Amino acid sequence: MLKIDIREQESLTPEQIRELESMWNRCARRIVLSTTLAGSGHPGGSLSTLHTLLVLYSTINHYPDDPRRDGRDRVIMSIGHVSPGVYAVLSEFGYVSEEQFLKEFRRDGSIFTGHVEQIVPGVEWNTGNLGQGLSVATGVAASEKLRKGSATTFCIMGDGEQQKGQVAEARRFAMKFGLGNLIGIIDRNHLQIGGSTEDVMPVKVREDYQAAGWNVVYVPDGNNFQEVYKSLRRAVTGENLTENIPVALVMRTVMGKGISFMENKAKYHGSPLPPDDCRKALEELGADPAILDEWKKKREAHSVDKSGHDIQVKYPDIDPGTPRVYSADTITDCRSAYGNALEDLADSNNRGTVPKITGFSCDLEGSVKMKGFHKVNPDAFFETGIQEHHAAACAGAMSVEGFAPFFSTFGVFAAGETYNQHRLTDQNHGNIKVVATHVGLDVGEDGPTHQCIDYISLMENLFGFSIFIPADPNQTDRIVRYAAANPGSVFVGMGRSKMASITDSQGNPFFGADYVFQPGKADLLREGSQATIIGCGSVMPNVMAAGEMLEKAGHSVAIINMASIKPVDEQAILDAADRGPVVTVEDHIATTGLGGITGRVMAMHGKAQRLVTLGVTRYGASGKPADLYADQGLDADSIRRTVEDLL
Amino acid sequence: MLKIDIREQESLTPEQIRELESMWNRCARRIVLSTTLAGSGHPGGSLSTLHTLLVLYSTINHYPDDPRRDGRDRVIMSIGHVSPGVYAVLSEFGYVSEEQFLKEFRRDGSIFTGHVEQIVPGVEWNTGNLGQGLSVATGVAASEKLRKGSATTFCIMGDGEQQKGQVAEARRFAMKFGLGNLIGIIDRNHLQIGGSTEDVMPVKVREDYQAAGWNVVYVPDGNNFQEVYKSLRRAVTGENLTENIPVALVMRTVMGKGISFMENKAKYHGSPLPPDDCRKALEELGADPAILDEWKKKREAHSVDKSGHDIQVKYPDIDPGTPRVYSADTITDCRSAYGNALEDLADSNNRGTVPKITGFSCDLEGSVKMKGFHKVNPDAFFETGIQEHHAAACAGAMSVEGFAPFFSTFGVFAAGETYNQHRLTDQNHGNIKVVATHVGLDVGEDGPTHQCIDYISLMENLFGFSIFIPADPNQTDRIVRYAAANPGSVFVGMGRSKMASITDSQGNPFFGADYVFQPGKADLLREGSQATIIGCGSVMPNVMAAGEMLEKAGHSVAIINMASIKPVDEQAILDAADRGPVVTVEDHIATTGLGGITGRVMAMHGKAQRLVTLGVTRYGASGKPADLYADQGLDADSIRRTVEDLL
Repeated sequence: MLKIDIREQESLTPEQIRELESMWNRCARRIVLSTTLAGSGHPGGSLSTLHTLLVLYSTINHYPDDPRRDGRDRVIMSIGHVSPGVYAVLSEFGYVSEEQFLKEFRRDGSIFTGHVEQIVPGVEWNTGNLGQGLSVATGVAASEKLRKGSATTFCIMGDGEQQKGQVAEARRFAMKFGLGNLIGIIDRNHLQIGGSTEDVMPVKVREDYQAAGWNVVYVPDGNNFQEVYKSLRRAVTGENLTENIPVALVMRTVMGKGISFMENKAKYHGSPLPPDDCRKALEELGADPAILDEWKKKREAHSVDKSGHDIQVKYPDIDPGTPRVYSADTITDCRSAYGNALEDLADSNNRGTVPKITGFSCDLEGSVKMKGFHKVNPDAFFETGIQEHHAAACAGAMSVEGFAPFFSTFGVFAAGETYNQHRLTDQNHGNIKVVATHVGLDVGEDGPTHQCIDYISLMENLFGFSIFIPADPNQTDRIVRYAAANPGSVFVGMGRSKMASITDSQGNPFFGADYVFQPGKADLLREGSQATIIGCGSVMPNVMAAGEMLEKAGHSVAIINMASIKPVDEQAILDAADRGPVVTVEDHIATTGLGGITGRVMAMHGKAQRLVTLGVTRYGASGKPADLYADQGLDADSIRRTVEDLL
Repeated sequence: MLKIDIREQESLTPEQIRELESMWNRCARRIVLSTTLAGSGHPGGSLSTLHTLLVLYSTINHYPDDPRRDGRDRVIMSIGHVSPGVYAVLSEFGYVSEEQFLKEFRRDGSIFTGHVEQIVPGVEWNTGNLGQGLSVATGVAASEKLRKGSATTFCIMGDGEQQKGQVAEARRFAMKFGLGNLIGIIDRNHLQIGGSTEDVMPVKVREDYQAAGWNVVYVPDGNNFQEVYKSLRRAVTGENLTENIPVALVMRTVMGKGISFMENKAKYHGSPLPPDDCRKALEELGADPAILDEWKKKREAHSVDKSGHDIQVKYPDIDPGTPRVYSADTITDCRSAYGNALEDLADSNNRGTVPKITGFSCDLEGSVKMKGFHKVNPDAFFETGIQEHHAAACAGAMSVEGFAPFFSTFGVFAAGETYNQHRLTDQNHGNIKVVATHVGLDVGEDGPTHQCIDYISLMENLFGFSIFIPADPNQTDRIVRYAAANPGSVFVGMGRSKMASITDSQGNPFFGADYVFQPGKADLLREGSQATIIGCGSVMPNVMAAGEMLEKAGHSVAIINMASIKPVDEQAILDAADRGPVVTVEDHIATTGLGGITGRVMAMHGKAQRLVTLGVTRYGASGKPADLYADQGLDADSIRRTVEDLL
């Protein structure tokens, strides 16, 4: 395995260049072979980045026998589609077997997926969605700064993806937080699927990085080992560059480099060579063209071992601390309870050299009640500005680097705007804690653009996420501590308004000192025998008030609080259906929320029962929450009436 | 009403300045009054943009008596939160009544919402989500170019929102398409909610626009009428500016301008003055401070008329043309059928001076089969590069300008990535046609990042959207023609693979020449008496194959194709439940998709029946669709087995 000390050695020796050339040749063969064998894939960009990847892996600190060893330099492949190039190079450095790669590339159950995934030793981050890699790399580089480590994070990007706005957000973040340990490498081959970048969407790559304040180094021939090495050395050592500022290496490369008839052809971005052309390419590479058919046979004779590919994710050991109990007469908002709990958590867990919990805000530090956390832990707090896409991806990356990041903003930005970023974090086995402090009509006067009434149905699709919706400040406290202390991604949604705590029938806080939050367990707030109201979130005060009216009218109605929406308490729903008619109430679209889930669970278990789902049925207006609730039948009296109609 | 010919007149006369100053004074009073009366809102930015808004409305072509008149200049308020400033100015120009504004600002049911909405005469576009306005403005400006009109589109932005990456995407689009009829105005007050833009997230406003190639004009005092006028004149006339290129006017302004104790205070971004401070402000403005209490009384005595606010959206008259029928033995993919239908539609509708249908691709023109459309209509085709957020918002804006835009990309980008943009289009009563050509595990080897398995549950939340999922190329053809010919936003999802057409029991195309697509109507593909399979999309060939196996085994199983997911055919579901056990099959997460909807409909109607929902239960692998289907029990044999187990 080639290992060059890039800080010591000014340039490559002729022997090293020869060795790199041999490696290049083997890798190029693998790239054309693997894609032709699979009948799909991206050979063009794999060839244009190959020189860079080979020089990089020859110079960085990495450990093929222990790929996740602490202290390693990280390589984030933002262009996940150049997987043939990555796997070819990882074979060269002993991470994976060439044979397995060629037999399994793009086959169901294999680790050699179309876009790179962490299941491949040596791959740090699953990618595929273009434009997110630089955000991820900033999260990794910021993590290394928090650890006070000296490793460098490299981010390999395409030039087409520079069009994506999130890249601009990531550039700004890297500047603000002085990520001098971050090197972005742009494979500037001027081609993307649709043709030349100039035709598809002109992008001023160097100008954009310069305007953002980055160190920019242009490399006129990014397919020349010596040039690549020297520029990388300059980026790593910081020679003639501004300190504590990230570096962008813009490598002018050639799509399909090294195979005469592939060079500068956009179609090889995403298409493999047909078999005859593959044989010609192999000949150009000095290989026996017959190996294509040999590999084809080996591939056909091989079955992929589909057994699971476990990913070990580090999660910090977090002390949930002592719950704060808000008395029955305390009027406050759930977001303040969240802020207090987060501050407590910082107090008890972030006092060491390296913090465990980090915080991300998007220009809403005050509204999302992160000021306390910020004060306790200025270094662990990342104010990212109005850059939600970046913030979500960056926090997601940090969650895989051994931290527990809390990402807070309004629900509209925390769920709908950043859904795809959370999805990628989820596919990366992340541990992000998304706390949306303003959801539902309860957002009030800011109006429909700011009223998030869809988060349940969005986040339900992310297999690794839990969804918790606290009913009051006490339950908020417990849920936030639970979320911090346990691995896994969560979405916590809460309303904006102040409220009194939910009480038991004796008038004491229901979620008092003895209460322990359990995912998948509903809270039976009031017993009853004739019907059940199942509610969640900021409508709970109205539900409780409706319950009182019904009780006074002589009805026996059970009240259930469904704080754990995912996993949901199926038994509680089935018990409710056995009891009598069921009414669900939520500050959310009912069909795609708690109402829909309740119906689905009943149907899946063959339960027939009268079910009425109260929720948001049209975009809200701009006004006081109580008025908006009344408009859509979510006030206490409407709830009461609905239940009485069923009795 | 002040009306200045900005092309004729080099500078403002002293009289005009005096008149503007009087207007400013009245508007400033309204701004502080309205926000204090409402107890919430954004006075600071309203005051910083006020000079600009007044000069703008004094110079542009606009028609308060006929706000949507053709040929008007458009003002897109990207900063929707400065609504007090907008309403104050619109009162001044006769669009709305000052009295109604002050009595109703931020009250439930009023047109005077917290973020500007089209229900206010003179407002072009509902905003609230920052960073989307410039994309919208490019869509409006591009529409005007298509109409060969000479109107100018102005986009008023904040400086905080310049952080948002989508702005960078919109800048590039405006350059590529030569939008010389677009003027962006940035209110550079250096403050956002969280404090100074330099503290929250430094953004190089001028550098970013310059790097993108725009004409940039810096206005050192954006709160000086003469300076604002002269810079606006320069932008409008193009004096000393490059032609056919958009202009960015960067106005250096002061947050809270004009009220001594509000100036340069970040807290007034989003907070009203307390009553005492409001009275002080009124005194500074030469008004009687007692008017606050007078208005308060008037406001309390006033009830808002909540009757609906109708929005008239223009939709072109589109000829759906003659359906193409694919014979039973034609093997093709739905996306080719889409491409063919779109080309036909262009042929029959876009031959006039102004096209009716436009197309948007995000670097996937070939994959989404838009090449035919592009060829017929190069001017109506917008290749936007890897800039999905921008493309979605821009196409959404064009849909409100009287065009029928088709926006096509992979499902992951068409739904998850751009959900929030579509949501805003929906709130704007848009008519966007989102056609996702690659959804589900059927995407295959590109792997989990590219497999969209959540679009039903996402798009179900958008009240104005329909969701259609064609079963085969024939149904695709009919659905695409239907979507084009009818107003309203739609999401159409289809798989990637080639397939034969679905046939009736005689072997003829089921969706043949006589078939007419109807929203809300399921297709009974096969009659049966013992059980029902309800499926949709790219699993339908497997469902049909399972049906054949079951028939051969002597079972009588009905097969329903649910192409219209929203609205769904509830009666077909209830009939199925009456018939016997129900199995749903889909290339989508079942709980949040067709399976969940089926369960919900059954439960809501009190139907108890055995229900099994087959769908995607974990992120897919990278491999051939048939293998991925088999892994997750979506192959024909698994479907057969599931049904047999229930019989």
